[in-house]
Amino acid sequence: MGHIVVEVMPKQEILDPQGKAVVGALHRLGHTAVTDVRQGKRFTLTVDGPVTEEHLAAARDAATTALSNPIIEDVVGVYELTGADAAQTAGVEA
Amino acid sequence: MGHIVVEVMPKQEILDPQGKAVVGALHRLGHTAVTDVRQGKRFTLTVDGPVTEEHLAAARDAATTALSNPIIEDVVGVYELTGADAAQTAGVEA
Repeated sequence: MGHIVVEVMPKQEILDPQGKAVVGALHRLGHTAVTDVRQGKRFTLTVDGPVTEEHLAAARDAATTALSNPIIEDVVGVYELTGADAAQTAGVEA
Repeated sequence: MGHIVVEVMPKQEILDPQGKAVVGALHRLGHTAVTDVRQGKRFTLTVDGPVTEEHLAAARDAATTALSNPIIEDVVGVYELTGADAAQTAGVEA
C-alpha cells in the first residue's frame, strides 16, 4: 500500500475568514506572534502496491479535477508519503 | 515573515464519509488504483520574522488546543515551510 499526499490551499487573493477567526483564537490563547493563518485541505490517497509515476500523475490530475476548485484554490503539493510513519500520517490502518 | 505548516488528519478509527465520496468520484474519473482517500486540514501560520523554536513550540500547542479536535483528529505534522515557494504554498502574499 502506498500513500500520496495532495495539499490544496486557498488562492492568495481569496479572503480566508476561517483563517482570520483562527488568528483571533490564537491571540486569545497568547500566541500573538502569529500574524496570519490560512486553512486548506490535506488529502491522503492510498493506492494498491508501491507508489508509481503513474499513480503520481493520476494524483496530480485528481488534484485539479476532483480535489480542488481551480477558481479559488491552488494545488500546492502532490508527493509520495514515505517513512516509518507513512500510515499514521495518512490516517489509515498500517 | 516565516511560515509554519500544521497538518491535521482524522484519527484512523474515524469513518471518513467525505473520503469515501471522493474515492467514488475518482473511480468514475478512471483513477481506479486509488483504494482510499482521507481528507484532513492543512494550516499555514505566518509569524513575524524568521521561524524560531518558540514559534514551533507555539504552533505545536496551537495545533492541539485550537486547530484540531483531539477526540477525532491527530496532529500529524508541524514544521517550518522553507524554500523558494514558501509564500506560494502558504497561500499568502510573498
